[in-house]
Amino acid sequence: MSDIEIRRATADDIPAIVALLADDELGALRETPDDLTPYRTAFDRLAKDPNQYVAVAVREGQVIGTLQLTIIPGLSRRGATRSIIEGVRIHADARGSGLGTELIEWAIATSRTEGCRLVQLTSDAVRVDAHRFYERLGFEASHLGFKYQL
Amino acid sequence: MSDIEIRRATADDIPAIVALLADDELGALRETPDDLTPYRTAFDRLAKDPNQYVAVAVREGQVIGTLQLTIIPGLSRRGATRSIIEGVRIHADARGSGLGTELIEWAIATSRTEGCRLVQLTSDAVRVDAHRFYERLGFEASHLGFKYQL
Repeated sequence: MSDIEIRRATADDIPAIVALLADDELGALRETPDDLTPYRTAFDRLAKDPNQYVAVAVREGQVIGTLQLTIIPGLSRRGATRSIIEGVRIHADARGSGLGTELIEWAIATSRTEGCRLVQLTSDAVRVDAHRFYERLGFEASHLGFKYQL
Repeated sequence: MSDIEIRRATADDIPAIVALLADDELGALRETPDDLTPYRTAFDRLAKDPNQYVAVAVREGQVIGTLQLTIIPGLSRRGATRSIIEGVRIHADARGSGLGTELIEWAIATSRTEGCRLVQLTSDAVRVDAHRFYERLGFEASHLGFKYQL
């Protein structure tokens, strides 16, 4: 996997990221890769926030993976900073290649550099394969994740 | 409950917030109310970040509840902004009074004002009463919450 670069995304990566978000059993219902306007607006806001990392994994000039890492300072646990991983997606051609592990390990290493004490994520209860993947990487499924749609 | 004010915390509220964080079955093991230095450092960082709300509920000049609300822009779900609630604590004297509901409803209303499409939180699997509380408020326990300690 040494030919893969993981880096912060630029605006030029938006079409490829949205294609990845949409190429997913749940994302297919939620995303509009034919209309990038809302994604560009959101990216502008993300790019200005130093606590936000939109990461892409690139191989031979092609974006084959993405995730969002948010750094969250806090008071609890003696003022511990934590991070949250969202929107992990791997290109269909790269699934099973170890790229997911590489991306999550990048997020963990970045969290460590940022002084985080804890890395968190939630995974939809239906994504059973994802649960096994995160447990293999050392995550503990200690919590329930609640969502409220506005 | 009309005598309760919910507002953003100031540095003067730190001792009361840390006392609330420590007065909890899990928090008792994690917090150091006798050493506020790490909390003050973290609060300085939180106070500078417009995406962070450290909220307190105050009655007759006493802090009786707190939570942290983080606004998180994102690309997925058509560039949806979401919010995350952490560190919900209610003073022992105020438990069962409806204050928890009032605080969470404040967080939901603030999330709506911030343009969020989704409010999220995770709750430790052992906090069964909390799970029922969030479900009554309209949250859906659709996800597993994973944590990785650094």
